[in-house]
Amino acid sequence: MTAPKTPSIDLNCDLGESFGNYKCGMDEEILPCITSANVACGFHASDPLVMQKTVRIAGENHVHIGAHPGFQDLVGFGRRSMSLPAEEITAIVEYQIGALSAFCTANGVRLQHVKPHGALYNMAVKDSVIAEAICEGIAAIDKHLILLGPAHSQLLLAAEKYGLPTAKEFFADRAYEEDGTLVPRSKPGAVIGNQAEAIGRVIKMIKEGTVTAITGKEIPAEADSICIHGDNPAAVAFARSIHDALQTEGIRIAPMDDIVRSAGGC
Amino acid sequence: MTAPKTPSIDLNCDLGESFGNYKCGMDEEILPCITSANVACGFHASDPLVMQKTVRIAGENHVHIGAHPGFQDLVGFGRRSMSLPAEEITAIVEYQIGALSAFCTANGVRLQHVKPHGALYNMAVKDSVIAEAICEGIAAIDKHLILLGPAHSQLLLAAEKYGLPTAKEFFADRAYEEDGTLVPRSKPGAVIGNQAEAIGRVIKMIKEGTVTAITGKEIPAEADSICIHGDNPAAVAFARSIHDALQTEGIRIAPMDDIVRSAGGC
Amino acid sequence: MTAPKTPSIDLNCDLGESFGNYKCGMDEEILPCITSANVACGFHASDPLVMQKTVRIAGENHVHIGAHPGFQDLVGFGRRSMSLPAEEITAIVEYQIGALSAFCTANGVRLQHVKPHGALYNMAVKDSVIAEAICEGIAAIDKHLILLGPAHSQLLLAAEKYGLPTAKEFFADRAYEEDGTLVPRSKPGAVIGNQAEAIGRVIKMIKEGTVTAITGKEIPAEADSICIHGDNPAAVAFARSIHDALQTEGIRIAPMDDIVRSAGGC
Amino acid sequence: MTAPKTPSIDLNCDLGESFGNYKCGMDEEILPCITSANVACGFHASDPLVMQKTVRIAGENHVHIGAHPGFQDLVGFGRRSMSLPAEEITAIVEYQIGALSAFCTANGVRLQHVKPHGALYNMAVKDSVIAEAICEGIAAIDKHLILLGPAHSQLLLAAEKYGLPTAKEFFADRAYEEDGTLVPRSKPGAVIGNQAEAIGRVIKMIKEGTVTAITGKEIPAEADSICIHGDNPAAVAFARSIHDALQTEGIRIAPMDDIVRSAGGC
Repeated sequence: MTAPKTPSIDLNCDLGESFGNYKCGMDEEILPCITSANVACGFHASDPLVMQKTVRIAGENHVHIGAHPGFQDLVGFGRRSMSLPAEEITAIVEYQIGALSAFCTANGVRLQHVKPHGALYNMAVKDSVIAEAICEGIAAIDKHLILLGPAHSQLLLAAEKYGLPTAKEFFADRAYEEDGTLVPRSKPGAVIGNQAEAIGRVIKMIKEGTVTAITGKEIPAEADSICIHGDNPAAVAFARSIHDALQTEGIRIAPMDDIVRSAGGC
Repeated sequence: MTAPKTPSIDLNCDLGESFGNYKCGMDEEILPCITSANVACGFHASDPLVMQKTVRIAGENHVHIGAHPGFQDLVGFGRRSMSLPAEEITAIVEYQIGALSAFCTANGVRLQHVKPHGALYNMAVKDSVIAEAICEGIAAIDKHLILLGPAHSQLLLAAEKYGLPTAKEFFADRAYEEDGTLVPRSKPGAVIGNQAEAIGRVIKMIKEGTVTAITGKEIPAEADSICIHGDNPAAVAFARSIHDALQTEGIRIAPMDDIVRSAGGC
Repeated sequence: MTAPKTPSIDLNCDLGESFGNYKCGMDEEILPCITSANVACGFHASDPLVMQKTVRIAGENHVHIGAHPGFQDLVGFGRRSMSLPAEEITAIVEYQIGALSAFCTANGVRLQHVKPHGALYNMAVKDSVIAEAICEGIAAIDKHLILLGPAHSQLLLAAEKYGLPTAKEFFADRAYEEDGTLVPRSKPGAVIGNQAEAIGRVIKMIKEGTVTAITGKEIPAEADSICIHGDNPAAVAFARSIHDALQTEGIRIAPMDDIVRSAGGC
Repeated sequence: MTAPKTPSIDLNCDLGESFGNYKCGMDEEILPCITSANVACGFHASDPLVMQKTVRIAGENHVHIGAHPGFQDLVGFGRRSMSLPAEEITAIVEYQIGALSAFCTANGVRLQHVKPHGALYNMAVKDSVIAEAICEGIAAIDKHLILLGPAHSQLLLAAEKYGLPTAKEFFADRAYEEDGTLVPRSKPGAVIGNQAEAIGRVIKMIKEGTVTAITGKEIPAEADSICIHGDNPAAVAFARSIHDALQTEGIRIAPMDDIVRSAGGC
């Protein structure tokens, strides 16, 4: 008979989005609040020097590294849909994972996970062809890389098909439909502006495994990681609040691979 | 007592320089003539799909793969000098090696060597700061990667300083000064236009360890690899001629790592 | 009472699609066959040196110049759909027209028309928001610029809304539906492979104002310009055949602004 | 007999250096302090949407527009030397002036001047080949465009050779050698950190036509424009101080073309 497991969660955040002379994000400030970083790979943001520094300071803060591949669209920050053939999506994912891996090797840290960025993420959530093209690229590089994505998505289904470990992410500030998918931003009530309410939802989801859908119905919900933002002072303050609230509640905060392994995931 | 070693040589050529809709180079035609390929990594030429295909067809032809990192200057094909800080040179070399490594992993082949491209190569031949910045990047990724460069260059000195195995390359169609360096293209007689003469020089260099300098003096010369071009039909025809002449002369043609290992280099 | 007008037509072709070290298209060969050139502006293809040279040689051949703006997607040659806000489409069209205009000014020639490229063209044919964003950009620069596009398209409707003169283009090698729109390439019979048949359709369209739809029905058709290709020897040979056949038939070949002005268009 | 002219000066500042998602510079805050803006053209910084907005808000603030062409090196912000052939420098200058001109036309304002950016500026100050390549490009577009550069530079000599009007700029926070050239930043005393001293030097230069060289010697100095920065709050505050001090001293602040015309320059 084993003791009941301590509830635990990973906190992930996009990192390393500066580019050349252009600064973006409050990386130093957000690092103490998170356990996993999604590091931009030079296609939608970042450059080799920024990647080198980002991996180094993440390592110094014991934050685990993930690749954050996106479309090659710097001026659009990878947020604009682009119609690429599946084999090209596979190739751009491989390229970006490889580039980031070099800085992991150079800094003596391991690449933990992959989370597609922006429009690539949004398209892959719904489109199985794109989702599978991404996972084919990841699996071709390293079958131990964790795919981080939302529950009930084509992304996670594709990862399972390709034998990749997966981590489900939960959005603290977003409302959910009854089927567990995100309420689109275009609909009223999609974003939860009240921080205390958002934090309460996260804690309830972790401890009780449920979330209140936008309809008011309680639905089952589970997550391995909470998606945090660090691009402005308010976001960093909110990240600190979540981090502290989780600790106060006795919830263990740990890197994604630790969470997924504990769950028997890989 | 050991039998005398068969003289042997590697033949290297730049490969995978197409980009999107733009075709460049006769890769399929040159592959049977060479044993090592310097594969462009997306900065001065190539893109992820071209890299994926190039590594695959090189592997199918048993041609070993090298990274060919250059300046991020697509419109200038990496041929224009740019003044980058040393740490940025290290970072762009790491990035490009990592990106190409991903396609090696995906295709089940190993990365054998690194040869800087264009202006980066030319600058590193003479400038020890640039040469060391490059070798620092290579060594941070994998100390078994062979640095391919010209004899008597800062590049090879830097590689030795960083503990990297090295391979010396010889230019069949170029004249040499008495000190073993290339005659600059701006000087008369720098390029050897007569193909039979060029091939004769290669064979003499391999068998006798000497080359006739532009002054007429016989100087010692040794090489692990001959630099071949494949960007036009005449170049491919010349490559075939060299390849066939070497075989006729009983010179073994083998990939760079085989040559360097046989020489006790690594 | 005026004499019957000689039937006349413009021949347009994409030009100046080389980029840096990458050559693309047979510009010198196609120039004698055409009267209007759609010149790439550095976003999907070309660079400042190529644009400078293209405008110069077009001028020397008395070929009139049009801007050929596209998405900023060099690796995809502007052929991939991208979701840009309308105001950004207006801005990229203005930017590219301005850049090309500089080379027109420097070469003492006038900018005649604008034809959107690739995915931008295809999207604007069907989407009035994109079509109007393009025409808003053109009109903001010069209300005398002719918009070149297919009949029955949102592009031409938008041009009329913004007070721009328009020119309709006809595709010699493509089949048409009964409503005058192109048969999609995905459908059988979309491309007319037989060159004699294609040329016959062009001549009939010019002289009789009709074309045989893919259903076999004769439908009305009119055009100010025929779209020609010059990216390979077969295309150039076909262009010469069309050019010569038109002359043999007594059809006047003249630049687009001449055609449109004669028609009372502007 | 004419009345003595009121001493007058232009204040110029780099503007519109944001790029896509990346914000850079305090454009709204600096605009009320300046009379001429050097607007980035998309090569070293900026994008079409940023250019459109920058020209619009400059116009609303009655600030005159100049093109600020640079090397195509976004990651290096155009600050890294690149070795381009002269004809390519001419072409990139023409391209960028043309692109910016489109937004001037669309906003109903006139392009006033050209100031090369970063490494291109620094190289052209000393190198007559580069300086002439730039001025050839400007002259080919519009011989009324004012070339803005430092006194005693190859840039101004080249502009005179090509018949372009010129404006001399003075750097408030930099020390000068006895020959009127800037003390290199690498030398001690090159930057004048004391703001009151810097402002005093500007006023003395305008009123008395002299400046104290780093050696202590009084040397003649004249300028049409003072170079101001607006990339951080301290720079904006300093700009306001200069602006206010000039007004207090009865010095007229006016756009560059007004200054140059008053001086009989064009």
